[in-house]
Amino acid sequence: MSTRASGDPAHDALRVATFWQPRAEGAARKILVGATLVFNEVGYHGASTRMIAQRAQMSPGAIYIHFSSKEELFFRIVMHGHSASCEALVQALRFSTDPAERLRHFVATYAAWHAEWSLIARPVHNDMQVLTDEHFAEVVEVRRATMALLDEILAAGVASGQFSVPDLPGTRRLLMSVCIDVSRWYVEGGPRSPSAIGLQYADLALKFVTT
Amino acid sequence: MSTRASGDPAHDALRVATFWQPRAEGAARKILVGATLVFNEVGYHGASTRMIAQRAQMSPGAIYIHFSSKEELFFRIVMHGHSASCEALVQALRFSTDPAERLRHFVATYAAWHAEWSLIARPVHNDMQVLTDEHFAEVVEVRRATMALLDEILAAGVASGQFSVPDLPGTRRLLMSVCIDVSRWYVEGGPRSPSAIGLQYADLALKFVTT
Repeated sequence: MSTRASGDPAHDALRVATFWQPRAEGAARKILVGATLVFNEVGYHGASTRMIAQRAQMSPGAIYIHFSSKEELFFRIVMHGHSASCEALVQALRFSTDPAERLRHFVATYAAWHAEWSLIARPVHNDMQVLTDEHFAEVVEVRRATMALLDEILAAGVASGQFSVPDLPGTRRLLMSVCIDVSRWYVEGGPRSPSAIGLQYADLALKFVTT
Repeated sequence: MSTRASGDPAHDALRVATFWQPRAEGAARKILVGATLVFNEVGYHGASTRMIAQRAQMSPGAIYIHFSSKEELFFRIVMHGHSASCEALVQALRFSTDPAERLRHFVATYAAWHAEWSLIARPVHNDMQVLTDEHFAEVVEVRRATMALLDEILAAGVASGQFSVPDLPGTRRLLMSVCIDVSRWYVEGGPRSPSAIGLQYADLALKFVTT
């Protein structure tokens, strides 16, 4: 908790580029990489399209060819962040049917994802409330899909008698919250890898709900 | 998770004023209240001393009589936030000796504090990495006091045979993390009160470490 966030700009740029590589192309990708880095460094309100253009080595005017506003740009990052973590969960859950095993997979994957991609997750979670109502509603839909996965796992564990979950929405929120917060404090090169963090969190989750 | 942060400016101003009332006086207090509100709304990088002055209904120049820079102002908020939560913990732990009971008190208090004072905790945790090395080191000292309280509780529970904690630093970090993240998503007037959240988190913690 007492270490600072990673400060190696070259490393951060590479990491963020890796995220966007399969998700956007050409100039739009360059802009999204630059925007993610700037939002991560100075927050939504501290960022300007001028700063983003500079980071993307483009003119400020060129940005508006691809994105109508700073908010639109941030919305794309928020949406892709949410979709990417949801897809990672779907992948991880594909081959298991036992609720306990599925819960472990869900929590391990979600926590590890927030370490692995903390440069994307951090600005998303810090500033999501700036989105317009329409954009916020779109994000909530993806988030609902993630929540539904966890709800389904918890309900299945209750039905099978493996879990005791007196407060399902509260338990789901708590488990998601602890995973999301990994993106705030995770430091690359720290004592624990994303997978090690994931496994520890999976233990926590299982102990919490097991009868 | 899908609700937005509170947006009632009058309520937020009152809440933040309540925090600073016993902690600063006169013009300095007015500035700290204004600064906390502005940092909470637009982040450290989005905030300017001009915006803070406007919120405090003072001239920008008047701010520099009391605080040398925006960073100095933010540092005061971070320090008071950390001290206040640490004091709340010391208070809560005063009358119990049983490790399980102490763990419940610690986690319930720390989680509830981050709901109750989310307007202070949110900007603190979002932007703490902007502090100068000297200021960061001072904050880490207060944070170490908080961490030491929890370490002592966990170690006592292990010594008494009540807890099993194979990874003490990891467990401490996880428990503090889940409490801190409450400040990100907590919405005043939501379905759960700060105390209700605290009690739920206390259950989680105890289940996690109990043998």
